[in-house]
Amino acid sequence: MNHYNELKLEGRNAVLEALRAGKPIDKLFVLDGAHDNALGNILREVKKHPETKLSFVKKERLEELSETGKHQGVIAISAAYEYASVEDMLALAAEKEEPPFLFILDGIEDPHNLGAIIRTANLAGAHGVIIRQDRAVGLTATVAKASAGALNYTPVAKVTNISKTIEQLKKSGLWFVCADMGGEIMYRLNLKGPIGLVIGNEGKGVSELVKKSCDMIASIPMKGDIDSLNASVAAGVLAYEIVRQRLN
Amino acid sequence: MNHYNELKLEGRNAVLEALRAGKPIDKLFVLDGAHDNALGNILREVKKHPETKLSFVKKERLEELSETGKHQGVIAISAAYEYASVEDMLALAAEKEEPPFLFILDGIEDPHNLGAIIRTANLAGAHGVIIRQDRAVGLTATVAKASAGALNYTPVAKVTNISKTIEQLKKSGLWFVCADMGGEIMYRLNLKGPIGLVIGNEGKGVSELVKKSCDMIASIPMKGDIDSLNASVAAGVLAYEIVRQRLN
Repeated sequence: MNHYNELKLEGRNAVLEALRAGKPIDKLFVLDGAHDNALGNILREVKKHPETKLSFVKKERLEELSETGKHQGVIAISAAYEYASVEDMLALAAEKEEPPFLFILDGIEDPHNLGAIIRTANLAGAHGVIIRQDRAVGLTATVAKASAGALNYTPVAKVTNISKTIEQLKKSGLWFVCADMGGEIMYRLNLKGPIGLVIGNEGKGVSELVKKSCDMIASIPMKGDIDSLNASVAAGVLAYEIVRQRLN
Repeated sequence: MNHYNELKLEGRNAVLEALRAGKPIDKLFVLDGAHDNALGNILREVKKHPETKLSFVKKERLEELSETGKHQGVIAISAAYEYASVEDMLALAAEKEEPPFLFILDGIEDPHNLGAIIRTANLAGAHGVIIRQDRAVGLTATVAKASAGALNYTPVAKVTNISKTIEQLKKSGLWFVCADMGGEIMYRLNLKGPIGLVIGNEGKGVSELVKKSCDMIASIPMKGDIDSLNASVAAGVLAYEIVRQRLN
C-alpha cells in the first residue's frame, strides 16, 4: 500500500552528515579493506544506528551501485515512504464493507512507538493511521522496522491540523475517543461503529484542543504505582477494547 | 541476587521515581547549567539523600556515561538491583488480599520490551514479573528507563527453569495462560482467579516445553496482514483482558 522511493547517498561527507543528522539510512555499503579517518568516523557513527544494515563490499559492487561515480568507498541507501490520504482510508473501509476504524496520533515522538502502533493498527483491523506533521516522528527506517512490515499494508497519512481533520471526519460519521486519565473506564463506553482512536504524546498526552474535539474520553484502569502505560501499549489496549466490542 | 555491579538510571522520570521510592543512589550526574522544573524536583529530592554524591558535569561527560543515549540531562548510578523471589510475589498478593497475578516472560530479548512489560505489569496490578536466567535480557539501564519507574515497585525474579517454576506455582493454585496463535480467542477464556500470564520470545514465541505446562492458550484476534503484535503490546492486551475479567 505504501510505496517507497530509494534515496542514494554517495561519498564520505554526504553519508557522515546524514548519519549525524539522524537521517534514516537502511543500508550502508563500505569498501572492504579500506581504512582511514573519514571511514572510521562513519563506522563509529553507524554504531549508534542499529537499524542500519552495514555491508563491506568489493569495489566492483560499489561501482555497480554508484550513480555519481564518486562514491569514495561509501554508499548509503535510505527509504522514503509515500504517505496516503485520509480519503484513501475511508475508501479502504468502504471497500471492505466495514465501519471506518482509524488511529489518530497526536504527536508520537518515539519511532519504536510509532512502528509498534502501526503494527497494532494493522492487526486490529484499522483502516489507517493519521500522524501530525509537526513535532512528531515521520516514517523513518526505524519506524518501518518496528512496524514489522505493517507499513507496507496500513496507510499512513500526515496532516497539519489534527483537530481540523477530526472535525472533517465527524462529517463522515466517525466518533472520536481519546485516551486520557480522568475519563470513563473504557469498558463502559460504547466503542462500536465508525471510530477514530486518538493517542497522545508520550510525555504530554493528548493536547487540550484535540481533547475538546473528541466525543469520548476513555481511561484504562490503573492499579499501580506509576503514572501511565507506554504509548504503544496504551494504544494496543484501547484498540483491542474496540476490537472486542466490534466482535460482540 | 543479580549479576550487575551497578545499575544506571537515565532520564528524569526514572531518576525521580527511584529517589522518591527511596532506592539507594550512589552517584547522581546532572547537566551543568541546566535549569527547569523536572531537574529542580530531582535536586530537591536528592537533598534528602545525603548518601548520594551529586556532580554537575558537562554534556560530553553525560554522553560518555549514557547507555541509552536518552539521559535528558541526568544519570544516576545506583547500588545493584536486587531481584525478588517468587515467594515475595505470592506474599505481596496475600498481603493485598488479591488472587496472585504474575507475568512470566519466556525469553524477552529487547530491553525496551522488558521495561514496557514491567511498566504494564505494575499498572495492571500484577504482583511480579518472572524472567528467564539464560538467553534473555536482564535489568539494564535501558530496561529501568523503559519501565518508567515501575522497576522500583514491581518485583522481578529471575529463574533458571520456567517450566519448573510454573509447575511449582500450580501447587499454589495458579492457572497459566500463554499467548500463542491457534489458541482460544482470549475473550472466551475464563481468566479470573490466581493466574500466570506467559509471554514468549519476540521472534520464537513461547517455547514448546513451556507451552505444554500452560493450562490455556489464548489468542489475540488478528485481522491484519502481518503475523504478530509487538511482544510488549501483546502482553498489554492480554493483561488488560485479565484486568477486565477481574473487574466483572
